[in-house]
Amino acid sequence: QFGSLSFGDVGRRVVVVRAEGQAINPEIRKSEDKVVDSVVVTELSKPLTAYCRCWRSGTFPLCDGSHVKHNKANGDNVGPLLLKKQ
Amino acid sequence: QFGSLSFGDVGRRVVVVRAEGQAINPEIRKSEDKVVDSVVVTELSKPLTAYCRCWRSGTFPLCDGSHVKHNKANGDNVGPLLLKKQ
Ligand code: FES
Ligand code: FES
Repeated sequence: QFGSLSFGDVGRRVVVVRAEGQAINPEIRKSEDKVVDSVVVTELSKPLTAYCRCWRSGTFPLCDGSHVKHNKANGDNVGPLLLKKQ
Repeated sequence: QFGSLSFGDVGRRVVVVRAEGQAINPEIRKSEDKVVDSVVVTELSKPLTAYCRCWRSGTFPLCDGSHVKHNKANGDNVGPLLLKKQ
């Protein structure tokens, strides 16, 4: 996966620039090798619970709506996983 | 969010390069404005089901283990959401 690049004030020499792959998760629990969460579905308290898949939520692993800002800023289309009791 | 950049063969002129924000989801259901999935937890068939949060699974919204390759390639630490019946 490569970033899109904007060039400005480029001289006559050839310049090779490579954007390295991006982490999906910039901040959440970076001390963990792999962030895995478990939900015992019988313990869900509400009829509907949204779980984050954008790694931008302030209440991760729950969704707090932060995917909206991420999608707008980055032209993306990610959204949560909804757990429904019925 | 900005990419990490590697520069090679840079001449004497100043070169300004900007990596734009990255989509978390490069490929899955890009025709949809927002990819939201629902799970009716009473309909889960197995004791344990893993749902993808890395947007790289070939069986999205389920996890197929593709997060391992993504993490290794990008120095990331994302993993699935596990739904457990007990
Ligand atoms: S805040 Fe991450 S999916 Fe909603
Ligand atoms: S394949 Fe995406 S979290 Fe496992």
